[in-house]
Amino acid sequence: MLQPELTLRRDKIRGLMAARGIDAALITCNTNLIYTFGSVVSGYLYLPLHSPALVFVKRPSNLQGEHLFHIRKPEQIVDLLREQGLPMPAKLMLEGDELPYTEYVRLAALFPEAEVVNGTPLIRQARSVKTAVEIELFRRSALAHAKAYERIPDVYRPGMTDIEFSIEVERLMRLQGSLGIFRVFGRSMEIYMGSVLTGDNAGYPSPYDFALGGQGLDPALPGGANGTPLREGQSVMVDLGGNFNGYMCDMTRVFSVGRLTDEAYAAHQVCLDVQELVAREARPGVSGEELYNAAIKLVGAAGFADRFMGIGQQARFIGHGIGLEINEAPVLAPRMKQPLEAGMVFALEPKIVIPGVGPVGTENSWVVTADGVERLTQGEDGIVALG
Amino acid sequence: MLQPELTLRRDKIRGLMAARGIDAALITCNTNLIYTFGSVVSGYLYLPLHSPALVFVKRPSNLQGEHLFHIRKPEQIVDLLREQGLPMPAKLMLEGDELPYTEYVRLAALFPEAEVVNGTPLIRQARSVKTAVEIELFRRSALAHAKAYERIPDVYRPGMTDIEFSIEVERLMRLQGSLGIFRVFGRSMEIYMGSVLTGDNAGYPSPYDFALGGQGLDPALPGGANGTPLREGQSVMVDLGGNFNGYMCDMTRVFSVGRLTDEAYAAHQVCLDVQELVAREARPGVSGEELYNAAIKLVGAAGFADRFMGIGQQARFIGHGIGLEINEAPVLAPRMKQPLEAGMVFALEPKIVIPGVGPVGTENSWVVTADGVERLTQGEDGIVALG
Repeated sequence: MLQPELTLRRDKIRGLMAARGIDAALITCNTNLIYTFGSVVSGYLYLPLHSPALVFVKRPSNLQGEHLFHIRKPEQIVDLLREQGLPMPAKLMLEGDELPYTEYVRLAALFPEAEVVNGTPLIRQARSVKTAVEIELFRRSALAHAKAYERIPDVYRPGMTDIEFSIEVERLMRLQGSLGIFRVFGRSMEIYMGSVLTGDNAGYPSPYDFALGGQGLDPALPGGANGTPLREGQSVMVDLGGNFNGYMCDMTRVFSVGRLTDEAYAAHQVCLDVQELVAREARPGVSGEELYNAAIKLVGAAGFADRFMGIGQQARFIGHGIGLEINEAPVLAPRMKQPLEAGMVFALEPKIVIPGVGPVGTENSWVVTADGVERLTQGEDGIVALG
Repeated sequence: MLQPELTLRRDKIRGLMAARGIDAALITCNTNLIYTFGSVVSGYLYLPLHSPALVFVKRPSNLQGEHLFHIRKPEQIVDLLREQGLPMPAKLMLEGDELPYTEYVRLAALFPEAEVVNGTPLIRQARSVKTAVEIELFRRSALAHAKAYERIPDVYRPGMTDIEFSIEVERLMRLQGSLGIFRVFGRSMEIYMGSVLTGDNAGYPSPYDFALGGQGLDPALPGGANGTPLREGQSVMVDLGGNFNGYMCDMTRVFSVGRLTDEAYAAHQVCLDVQELVAREARPGVSGEELYNAAIKLVGAAGFADRFMGIGQQARFIGHGIGLEINEAPVLAPRMKQPLEAGMVFALEPKIVIPGVGPVGTENSWVVTADGVERLTQGEDGIVALG
């Protein structure tokens, strides 16, 4: 990562800090270090409002750089700040929604004179509007994602289960350069790269905050494929996270074994209509709630309200911001009144579950431009027949 | 999970609570819910010292059970406890090393009269001594892990890179039933299933707390394979986490492309000698530090001290407890004076890096018995030639 890009990102955070009277940030969680330092390190980035960032590294041992200090424990940070002639902050922010309680308390105790506040919402706000460099990384991720998905029909074999199919698609993603790791904000989501759902497993409610659930293979990871055979007349939905460089595109495609019911194709078309509607309406100034409400109205008029985004347990969103984590701002959901801004990137995933058939719908990643949105993930949106 | 097993586990935690005067625990992190409830849920398990556990579930919506209540938000818990006639706790424990700061504070505020303490160390202590059912789950995980590894030589093709080899081994693991997900305690480790290291990449220092590092494919995940070709005369180390049912066995095997240097074979033998030494000495009452010191003495006498567990940046442990997370108690490391107990399960991973060749050594998972240790992961420990 080049220094001007890191400076730009740090200055975005500084701008939000200044508006809240915050003197300094101490950043240590991996996604925020990737954002502000360009890579994961075991250590801390100290970001003062009015002077250059300092980096305190525990590991790796070979890291060198300006304003970079090797430490064994965070208690050394304060002395090093003093040696550099930096004042102690009056108001400091820590990653309160991300740091474990005991670690937050330990870091706050380093600055006994400071008012310590939760900086996570502010850093997430800065991260929600992507820079040109980040959008370029998304474009590369989207290209690789689409390239892997193009080959999905080649790995299908009759008689496969959903999990066997998933394994081959995971391999296609890895061969295109996927890092595999699926980074999430908060505790509400866990998965292995992504999910493949077929038949009635798509309506199985899960504890996680994904658009659809699935039973999974074991109660230790109750989501996604559960070993259901890919049978004639069933749909199969592939929704894998595309993390090729840290930036996670999100993309879903639906396949069919043989022909599905007419209702399934009709439902799929409704999801494509939702996608077209949102793509037409989304632009700076429009809120996530407005887009959600417009989508719900369309789906309701088409008669699929009770099967949209799940059956029984229905997800209450149609899209979500993406970035270094799969669930960033903005969210396209009720009560989300924050207006879209140019540079925001989101995944839009209208999905309907048809009992006895499986899930239909689509998902693509979009970047908000000056006057609309631009699609990042290319490729056929229709249901592709396997075999 | 059968109720008697869950009761046994909850009573182990209760015993430690009683010794510290703690009235109740509120448990919500996924691994601790798997431990005490048998599956991941989005919700809370309230564990009073003297009455049955109550479960408060947000998702999935279809969950039913005795003492199980559906809620939308944790603030409803207190009223439900009162309705059940339960007293408010005087001393409550929360998962302080695992819960994000803001979530801990929110949950603590539900019990304004209570003294709130960090319960993570106590739950980890309970989890460190496995029940018979957990050991049986480990046995099954170990069998599947070894079965996948047996097939590794079949997927090797000359000209492969380390990452291409890794992708095929990941697939073997998934086909044997691996859930893939790699659960970790704390913020010091991230990886996609595990690592494959060859040549000098094995000595590349990483920010993570693994035995060896590796550069990785991208600064967003700087560990493991980095695209190095598997060249003649190089070793390749496969160290994938084996999570087939929540319980993660750990197992490493080394392969060679053609023949390695005599020094590499000698170093490998030293690692096998360390394994034999620890297997002979480990038993209830012996500490992790004693085993570590004995290993270091052996390695030093053999002349490999400066390349043991890495070069430059050397890991200061030879083994670690395993369970629902890859890094549980006990740790075989300096200053670890806690004695082993029957039922503890640990991975032992003596490894040496040979410049110009790559990593050698082995890793197996072991359960502490009444008078020694028993090996869980079977299969050849020698270096297997590929091709």
